[in-house]
Amino acid sequence: MKLVIIGAVAGGASAAARARRLDEEAEIILFERGEAPSFANCGLPYYVGGVIEDRNDLLVSPKQRLIDRYRLDVRTRAEVLRIDRDQKCVHVRDLTTNEEYQQAYDKIVLSPGAAPLRPPIPGADLPTVYTLRDLSDADRLREAASDAKQAVVIGAGFVGLEMTENLVHLGIKTTVVEMADQILPPWDAEMVAPIANHLREKGVHLKLSDAANAIEYKSAEKSGSQLAVKLKSGETLTADFVVMSVGVRPENQLAVDAGLEVGPRGGIRVNESMQTSDPDIYAAGDAVEVRHVVDGSPCQIPLGGPANRQGRLAADHIFGRPGLYRGTQGTAVVGVFDMTATMTGFSEKALLAAELAYEKIYIHPAHHAGYYPGAQQLSLKLLFSLDTGKILGAEAVGRSGVDKRIDVLAVAIQAGMTVYDLEEMELAYAPQYGSAKDPINMAGFVAAGVLRGDQPIVHSSDLLAGSIDPSTYLLDVRSPGEFAAGHIKGATNIPLEELRSRLEEVPADGAIIVYCQVGQRGYSATRILLQKDREVSNLSGGYLTYLAQQNT
Amino acid sequence: MKLVIIGAVAGGASAAARARRLDEEAEIILFERGEAPSFANCGLPYYVGGVIEDRNDLLVSPKQRLIDRYRLDVRTRAEVLRIDRDQKCVHVRDLTTNEEYQQAYDKIVLSPGAAPLRPPIPGADLPTVYTLRDLSDADRLREAASDAKQAVVIGAGFVGLEMTENLVHLGIKTTVVEMADQILPPWDAEMVAPIANHLREKGVHLKLSDAANAIEYKSAEKSGSQLAVKLKSGETLTADFVVMSVGVRPENQLAVDAGLEVGPRGGIRVNESMQTSDPDIYAAGDAVEVRHVVDGSPCQIPLGGPANRQGRLAADHIFGRPGLYRGTQGTAVVGVFDMTATMTGFSEKALLAAELAYEKIYIHPAHHAGYYPGAQQLSLKLLFSLDTGKILGAEAVGRSGVDKRIDVLAVAIQAGMTVYDLEEMELAYAPQYGSAKDPINMAGFVAAGVLRGDQPIVHSSDLLAGSIDPSTYLLDVRSPGEFAAGHIKGATNIPLEELRSRLEEVPADGAIIVYCQVGQRGYSATRILLQKDREVSNLSGGYLTYLAQQNT
Repeated sequence: MKLVIIGAVAGGASAAARARRLDEEAEIILFERGEAPSFANCGLPYYVGGVIEDRNDLLVSPKQRLIDRYRLDVRTRAEVLRIDRDQKCVHVRDLTTNEEYQQAYDKIVLSPGAAPLRPPIPGADLPTVYTLRDLSDADRLREAASDAKQAVVIGAGFVGLEMTENLVHLGIKTTVVEMADQILPPWDAEMVAPIANHLREKGVHLKLSDAANAIEYKSAEKSGSQLAVKLKSGETLTADFVVMSVGVRPENQLAVDAGLEVGPRGGIRVNESMQTSDPDIYAAGDAVEVRHVVDGSPCQIPLGGPANRQGRLAADHIFGRPGLYRGTQGTAVVGVFDMTATMTGFSEKALLAAELAYEKIYIHPAHHAGYYPGAQQLSLKLLFSLDTGKILGAEAVGRSGVDKRIDVLAVAIQAGMTVYDLEEMELAYAPQYGSAKDPINMAGFVAAGVLRGDQPIVHSSDLLAGSIDPSTYLLDVRSPGEFAAGHIKGATNIPLEELRSRLEEVPADGAIIVYCQVGQRGYSATRILLQKDREVSNLSGGYLTYLAQQNT
Repeated sequence: MKLVIIGAVAGGASAAARARRLDEEAEIILFERGEAPSFANCGLPYYVGGVIEDRNDLLVSPKQRLIDRYRLDVRTRAEVLRIDRDQKCVHVRDLTTNEEYQQAYDKIVLSPGAAPLRPPIPGADLPTVYTLRDLSDADRLREAASDAKQAVVIGAGFVGLEMTENLVHLGIKTTVVEMADQILPPWDAEMVAPIANHLREKGVHLKLSDAANAIEYKSAEKSGSQLAVKLKSGETLTADFVVMSVGVRPENQLAVDAGLEVGPRGGIRVNESMQTSDPDIYAAGDAVEVRHVVDGSPCQIPLGGPANRQGRLAADHIFGRPGLYRGTQGTAVVGVFDMTATMTGFSEKALLAAELAYEKIYIHPAHHAGYYPGAQQLSLKLLFSLDTGKILGAEAVGRSGVDKRIDVLAVAIQAGMTVYDLEEMELAYAPQYGSAKDPINMAGFVAAGVLRGDQPIVHSSDLLAGSIDPSTYLLDVRSPGEFAAGHIKGATNIPLEELRSRLEEVPADGAIIVYCQVGQRGYSATRILLQKDREVSNLSGGYLTYLAQQNT
């Protein structure tokens, strides 16, 4: 067996290691265009920022180790130019000697990854406009950052915000320009609004709903010149350098040239065994189109975990092992200074785009027992089916403990679990780690309560969009102090504790919306009023979600 | 509806709050023998140690709030003496006035909890021998600790070790006496051996396989005297006070007196709706016997999360809601200084006791990407069915990120998932939070590899017990430096990197065990040798598990 693997990072390296474990005799040739195989691409922003000090730490599986332990034929600085399916060989250029040669194959694993996009604007390719994909990109950026005072980051996705954090740590005044009206576009806007505020607190200039129209040298003498970034809004930003982080596109050229099927957004089409339209050519990683775990729809979700699994599965299938790729569910986490955003499954906007029916709830519990010092409030949004209670997606944002909750929900989605299952989850509890009623249980209680009709809810999004009858009676059941510090316009304040004794103040007819700070007292008030025959709903997530929604 | 709830902590308080939400008109009377309802019993050790400074923080739902928000009839310092099932009333003593009275009921939720055991040894009831259950116990211990220099803790379970940590933080020289040959008896010994070492590093004196035979005053003048704790081993320990934390027993006296069924270990028998043998009397919390999630066997597992769920379910059933208790799976976490021990499902010893077939694997991955600063090694033991791969239990121990992994595995057990499902889990990965191949995936890879026959394994426990043929060839595939720093007696060193070229040194016939530091290089070596027709097994968990096992 001659196995040719094209691309030696997550998917390719996993396929190679797995292949060797399955077959000691196979000839395994690993082509990597860059200088190093299997580097930690998710670590690059932290290397630029100096958090990861030693460049060698980024070499997860150094070339020599791949050779020694796995007896791989690792060819770095070797670019595969073309796949000849008829001759079953690949055409390769050695980037060091510039020589070209052919390499025969029995099977190929194509793992070329995805390339950072450069938008077609004037100046996008100036030498001090950087993208970040590999080690040499990181070297260049580290060098550029070493004596810079101000920078512009275009694109507020994962890489953009991780770079922003690292640039700020280096003392660089950083402006982030994002075309969308929110940061972190995969998330729903109201969930990441608190992170946008956090960025501003850290001194980051945030330009949302704006875009770069052109990048120019500021001075006539180009070398060493600062850049002028001209925005759609008319503003011009000055920067010592620019980081372009507006997304990636699958590196599908080899596949397209070889006549392999690709999807509408360019992802290489594969079946559940990671085979492309040519059964001798497999593909894995950021360049492939996958099925979404929740609804089976085709999608492109570039993530390290799935890339590794796909590479492993491709090798399994090549060596006769069963094993089907179950799809990708988009579990993601990003750290932004002291905050963390996580998600799994569908966002609300993705559900809307897919025209899938859903309900949502918001909660804002503490990440561990409130009575133990250091409890941090987190925000959790749960999306679920109105019919079955099946979990469709979740987002969690906060300072601590959000990655844990999203992992639990990721498994729940994998298992096809419902909000009723969340009620019953038995999670680890001691006061430093969680709560006897964990945020996960709380989310289950609230969502199941909605489905059971115990707690009709309304959403701040609808309230703010004006889609709720303006004659609705708005009842704030928080304390007078909380009410005085800020409330929804038009609301009447009756603290929960006084609700039963002041019931006659609440209109007997017409719709009522109650709210509190996070939704919990609102729930109790809803229960009281429902049993007093009022037409009442609780504002999900309370005033906190309202404020976040208002901030979008 | 007159609902009488006996015991106002986790199970009782949850039942009361839920009952009110379901029925605004019900009369809900909450009896609590102590001074406060709904206090944070899991926080008591940290209050004694001053980590939780304000005693009021322990009052999770203060009495007045229960009255104001839930309109509960909260009667503290009120002891229920007897349940009269014929008359459907309870006999109550007001501990403040010492008056007795009767209270009629339609339904009862019995949530009396579990009481700390005092072993029947002389001196166990001396006034400076403390147990820790409620606020007044904590007050007494805090007072005792305030001017103490040395203390003895009897029992190295949850409360014992949490108290130990807190006493050490207060500067008190602390000795822990534990009858078992390990700390934290619910865990398997080899998993918590590193925590025992950690305790010793923190200056704790650990007396395992020992017990107190008697406790006496050291001086004839009893008041203010130190205590002499006489051990089975012959040693006598001096202490300013003793903490007795040798376990709990269900407070079943009311139930027994009322003729309700109890299990062999005293737990009140309930059905899946939390009804006792009298359908008008429900029970919840530490006093009940439950079913184990994994095999349905009856068990007693006193934990806060299950107690809350049980109380809620009891209220649901009383007010006509469906909902069945699914059982308890024993998900637990305890912090011991800088380390954390977690578990869910069955331990190995529990599987052995239940005579259930299983296999186990050990791994020692980093809690997040190794290339990002601060990665901490954790140890994970996974127990699973040899037939189906179904997960039966797990234990994780380390410094960071272990509670997250055990929560994921707890959900996997709840969902009836297998080790094959762990391979496919898509968990949140960024270098500060996890790895592209999360420890959970790694555990799945290893366990599934064992089941698929890709990786025959052997266990350090068998090796150390001498149950492996002494003629077996022991092959250490680590580096010469690692080998020189310590290895298993009789092992030959051939580093993995040299194994292929030195294959002729490995015997062609007879059993071979390979090992490395954690099992990963051992796995690669196993794959090589298997394909070279050797009869080879990998030592699960490698030298690290061997050392931990040797330490038990």
